[in-house]
Amino acid sequence: MPEEQIYDIAVVGCGPAGLSAALNGQIRRKKVIILGSEFCSPKLHSSPKVDNYLGFGDITGEELRQKFLKHIESVGLSINRARVTGIYPGESGFTLQSQDVSYRARTVVLATGVSTVKPIDNEIELLGRGVSYCATCDGPLFEGKRVAVLAYNQEALDEANFLSEIAAEVTVIPLLKEENETNEVIQNPKIKVIEDVPKAITGENWATGVALEKQQLEVDGIFVIRDAILPDQLVSGLEVAPDGIKVNRDLATNIEGIFAAGDCTGQPYQLSKAVGEGQVAALNAVKYVDTKHGAS
Amino acid sequence: MPEEQIYDIAVVGCGPAGLSAALNGQIRRKKVIILGSEFCSPKLHSSPKVDNYLGFGDITGEELRQKFLKHIESVGLSINRARVTGIYPGESGFTLQSQDVSYRARTVVLATGVSTVKPIDNEIELLGRGVSYCATCDGPLFEGKRVAVLAYNQEALDEANFLSEIAAEVTVIPLLKEENETNEVIQNPKIKVIEDVPKAITGENWATGVALEKQQLEVDGIFVIRDAILPDQLVSGLEVAPDGIKVNRDLATNIEGIFAAGDCTGQPYQLSKAVGEGQVAALNAVKYVDTKHGAS
Repeated sequence: MPEEQIYDIAVVGCGPAGLSAALNGQIRRKKVIILGSEFCSPKLHSSPKVDNYLGFGDITGEELRQKFLKHIESVGLSINRARVTGIYPGESGFTLQSQDVSYRARTVVLATGVSTVKPIDNEIELLGRGVSYCATCDGPLFEGKRVAVLAYNQEALDEANFLSEIAAEVTVIPLLKEENETNEVIQNPKIKVIEDVPKAITGENWATGVALEKQQLEVDGIFVIRDAILPDQLVSGLEVAPDGIKVNRDLATNIEGIFAAGDCTGQPYQLSKAVGEGQVAALNAVKYVDTKHGAS
Repeated sequence: MPEEQIYDIAVVGCGPAGLSAALNGQIRRKKVIILGSEFCSPKLHSSPKVDNYLGFGDITGEELRQKFLKHIESVGLSINRARVTGIYPGESGFTLQSQDVSYRARTVVLATGVSTVKPIDNEIELLGRGVSYCATCDGPLFEGKRVAVLAYNQEALDEANFLSEIAAEVTVIPLLKEENETNEVIQNPKIKVIEDVPKAITGENWATGVALEKQQLEVDGIFVIRDAILPDQLVSGLEVAPDGIKVNRDLATNIEGIFAAGDCTGQPYQLSKAVGEGQVAALNAVKYVDTKHGAS
């Protein structure tokens, strides 16, 4: 069920950069939506002490995180729990696809943080050609077929359950860190679980299987479900340097209307830098909306 | 009396960008000096409300300014009241010249804010050729000669008094906003006061006078004493765009070892941007010191 509302600014991510971007967009009276993960900024949460964010001497990361969330709430913003799997340009802005809802926005601020994710061999090359990041979006393409789910998080197991209603055969390779999280999948009789480590997606122009450490798995489609999606996989054609998304001093990316802020734009991975970039990205997004669509 | 101590980082300016830079340099265990003006951030002081600095919802500018200063003190930093009039590269870093003390530092972070100062005609062209920003530095060159002082602040009047001990003739053109501040000068019998508005410095290759609105003043030297000095007048050869000092994503300027942060690097003139840039500039200055001079 796609939403028809058009936001001025969609902020992807709810760490310090994302929250600062949303705050500044909202204060400038733009219609802002935050698309965030289950938990905003695990990195901040786990910092025992933050001493270099000007104005707060000697505070724990968690205390600061609470202040950030409270500040966001105080201006009337809330965080929509949504894992964005793809961002697509359209006539009047962008469509942001998440698991089961799509959002429309005139501009996007990417604040996805640092991703330590390394795609497996051939994953990027075959993305959209048998490899997908979103079961809800692409599941129906595999009706009656065999699919594999590379399950890096809990949500992947829900996705596997969903796929089991469509596909003829679902094989889950659980790659979660917590062993006990896999129980739910194992109890579904339509899902086969293989404990192994994926090395590569196989196939020339279309994915035909997964090369696991101990065996070769032949399937028609592969769903890779992780918390983090690399920015250039999120947005087709986005320029990315080894250190992060390429941005200019306005925090504009190479794609008109898409800005980026925080750790995802490269080092230093620091709080003040993230908050400052979130602000600059938002203000330039505001300017872009006003120029392109008329001041509101 | 020049100081012989060499600092790792000299921060010029004590607004949010400068304080954030100093804080981050200090936390990284570098020897930091802040060269600030009489009053740190009049702009923040006069903001009735700041609502877009993440973590502090609904706070006055003055409250935030106090928190910033307290944070700086809590890490053992203090602000040296010094108006830097010139920065000169040398063998092992830079010399920063202020009214009566010079400082040495391996790197410099410029955080001088937005300057609304407009130099008068020919001022920049003849700077160092009869035009000076520092009486203590250049006064002795004009022994027994005629000098004019364009006095934009209270300090300029002290400079005029000092010059009256060296020069044969001192003419002050008071350009202060507060009328009563000029009293002290008028009481000095060696100083002549002309109430007029300077339009241009005259002279071809060397300053020979000041074109005032109502008359022409012939002198051998002209001292222009303002609170703000434009960055490219502070540092010879510094690249400046119409909007501010040219910096890259590392906040490095075109001069190796000199970084810039905050309003002086251009729009948006915003607090979070300034604090973030201060951090990035400082961390890159730290990196530069470690690479160039060995980690401390």
